[in-house]
Amino acid sequence: MQPDTGLKTLQTPALVLDEAKMNANIARLARHAETLGVSLRPHLKTAKSVDVAGRLLTGGNGPATVSTLAEAEVFAAAGISDILYAVGIAPQKLDRVLALRDAGCDLTIILDSEEQARAVAEASAKSGGPIPSLIEIDSDGHRGGVQPDDDATLLAIGRILYGCGSLRGVLTHAGESYNVSGAEAHADFAERERLAVVTAAERLRADGLPCPIVSVGSTPTAHAARDLTGVTEVRAGVYVFFDLVMAGIGVCQPEDIAISVLATVIGHQRARGWVLVDAGWMAMSRDRGTAPQKVDQGYGLVCDENGTIIPDLVVSQANQEHGVIMVRPGSSGVAPDLPVGTRLRILPNHACATAAQYDRYHVVPADGGSMAVWPRFGGW
Amino acid sequence: MQPDTGLKTLQTPALVLDEAKMNANIARLARHAETLGVSLRPHLKTAKSVDVAGRLLTGGNGPATVSTLAEAEVFAAAGISDILYAVGIAPQKLDRVLALRDAGCDLTIILDSEEQARAVAEASAKSGGPIPSLIEIDSDGHRGGVQPDDDATLLAIGRILYGCGSLRGVLTHAGESYNVSGAEAHADFAERERLAVVTAAERLRADGLPCPIVSVGSTPTAHAARDLTGVTEVRAGVYVFFDLVMAGIGVCQPEDIAISVLATVIGHQRARGWVLVDAGWMAMSRDRGTAPQKVDQGYGLVCDENGTIIPDLVVSQANQEHGVIMVRPGSSGVAPDLPVGTRLRILPNHACATAAQYDRYHVVPADGGSMAVWPRFGGW
Repeated sequence: MQPDTGLKTLQTPALVLDEAKMNANIARLARHAETLGVSLRPHLKTAKSVDVAGRLLTGGNGPATVSTLAEAEVFAAAGISDILYAVGIAPQKLDRVLALRDAGCDLTIILDSEEQARAVAEASAKSGGPIPSLIEIDSDGHRGGVQPDDDATLLAIGRILYGCGSLRGVLTHAGESYNVSGAEAHADFAERERLAVVTAAERLRADGLPCPIVSVGSTPTAHAARDLTGVTEVRAGVYVFFDLVMAGIGVCQPEDIAISVLATVIGHQRARGWVLVDAGWMAMSRDRGTAPQKVDQGYGLVCDENGTIIPDLVVSQANQEHGVIMVRPGSSGVAPDLPVGTRLRILPNHACATAAQYDRYHVVPADGGSMAVWPRFGGW
Repeated sequence: MQPDTGLKTLQTPALVLDEAKMNANIARLARHAETLGVSLRPHLKTAKSVDVAGRLLTGGNGPATVSTLAEAEVFAAAGISDILYAVGIAPQKLDRVLALRDAGCDLTIILDSEEQARAVAEASAKSGGPIPSLIEIDSDGHRGGVQPDDDATLLAIGRILYGCGSLRGVLTHAGESYNVSGAEAHADFAERERLAVVTAAERLRADGLPCPIVSVGSTPTAHAARDLTGVTEVRAGVYVFFDLVMAGIGVCQPEDIAISVLATVIGHQRARGWVLVDAGWMAMSRDRGTAPQKVDQGYGLVCDENGTIIPDLVVSQANQEHGVIMVRPGSSGVAPDLPVGTRLRILPNHACATAAQYDRYHVVPADGGSMAVWPRFGGW
């Protein structure tokens, strides 16, 4: 790798982060959460960066959400002490959970079955301290969670967790909200999230079980929610950067997207209207999240080197290290002349997936100063 | 990360490499290349591992192909001294190319335009040493390359490169061979590759230009080629591990696939026939390369912990850290009972994409000894 002396000399492909856009995205949801009167628990899985976490977590040490124990370990080591690991727990991972708790991190886990609850009870008994757990509720048929009408399972899990001092509350995530467009539709999913967890919390409490945490969230529902009565915290992740999928369902504008992939033109197939760049799927990820949307952005929407969108120019195909840029099929647009060596920036379909292809962010600072490098980690 | 004490205690998800299968895949193509009388120049982009390269390159120090300069730098530092960087060169990358050549690596680049050739001539003149270059030929409309009937461009590039001592030969890659099935169809593409480069080489030579290297290759065509008269070397990459895409077009059997993702069951949605595992698209990649094939393998085909395929059980959906396993739609198969905590291995659609999600291989050694960890790198 070459030294980082600014956009003009960066080797490509490289991941560029526009700090001013990120700050605006962070501030927007923080304001909305304040209006709703709920705590915001940002999901750090998108950025996987201690530097970004420092800007997301205004309190400094939490609350935060993570998707892997590797994230929990890195962020706990960086001083974040209130972390929710929001993927159903495998019993084999409880040792690492306990090690983090022993090291002073208030790590909470989630689960949706009696067998997991029993594993937590065993581990809690063995370790001498309860492992705080949330019961996952399936509010929209997206993936895990107790069915909202399955009181028997909810209460059975609740009793096991209560018995070992581990019952901390309920949680849901409306992943299906990504598949509908517009604030109205997202507000409906937000209300569905709220109803599912508030109802579950009431059932637990009616059975004499405590339920202090009532957690909801996804980026679309967090932004669209109008009333979160009964909810104590809201989670969201991808909003820190935003992406074309979020723009496609109306949660943001393409201009709000804070990360892009810097690429260089390496060739042409002029008869086919193709411009080849050195950003293929390794640089963009294989994510095609806009394919089922109204506007298919291919593997990404192309901007000039300064980040200004070139209308209707997309990465339409991708090999491992080759991207094929062309005017979006059906558009009457014309591609500008882009000689070999031209540098472009490409907005990603899915920020979590694209960022995961890199080990660092090249940051264009909000204060206009010289560029910074923020490390990024992966793994489990 | 926990210490690696064998499959039973590995934290999941993790990338497992079956060394015996890999060795068989390596030996198979080496034998075929020997029969055809051509040199084999393995592509190291799939494995990105010095340990794997050591087994692929029987000569020890080359010849090899790479897809990034980061690969060239790592492998050159590991002693590999004959490397082809097989992505069209960006002029901004010539400094790194020269640095590698100055350090003693015989690095060759590829290009397909006069503007690139002029940039090479300038850099060669400035550095006092020619940069060996191959002219890329487009044999199948897949991505880059001079059109096979465009003699004017071919000769113009050839003359510029010859003028600076950089002309080393011609190259093509039949990427479209991935989209057809069966040895017959792949053999047709192999012949198309051969004809394109042999014809281009003859045109250059007829113009008095040297063309010592005539390079072809893709995994399907390398295995299916019947006659490579006039060709000097064949390239292939993914064959080292193979994957479901290659199995789907008949280049290998699913049982030949040498890498798999070890995952753990974390939940169920029994009414929907879902088994949830901790391997989502972050663990498998977003690659859906089997989607257009006859048998859609979802995000991967499921095996038991020992690597035995469970028929028709696939990862049908994936979130970032959640995979949803179910019986393939349309199959009459029944999923076995897979309680929370069950460990499974998942064969990938695309080995290059899945392996890229990891920083190490957990190797089941061919000699039956204890497991090893081989590091893996990424970046550019």
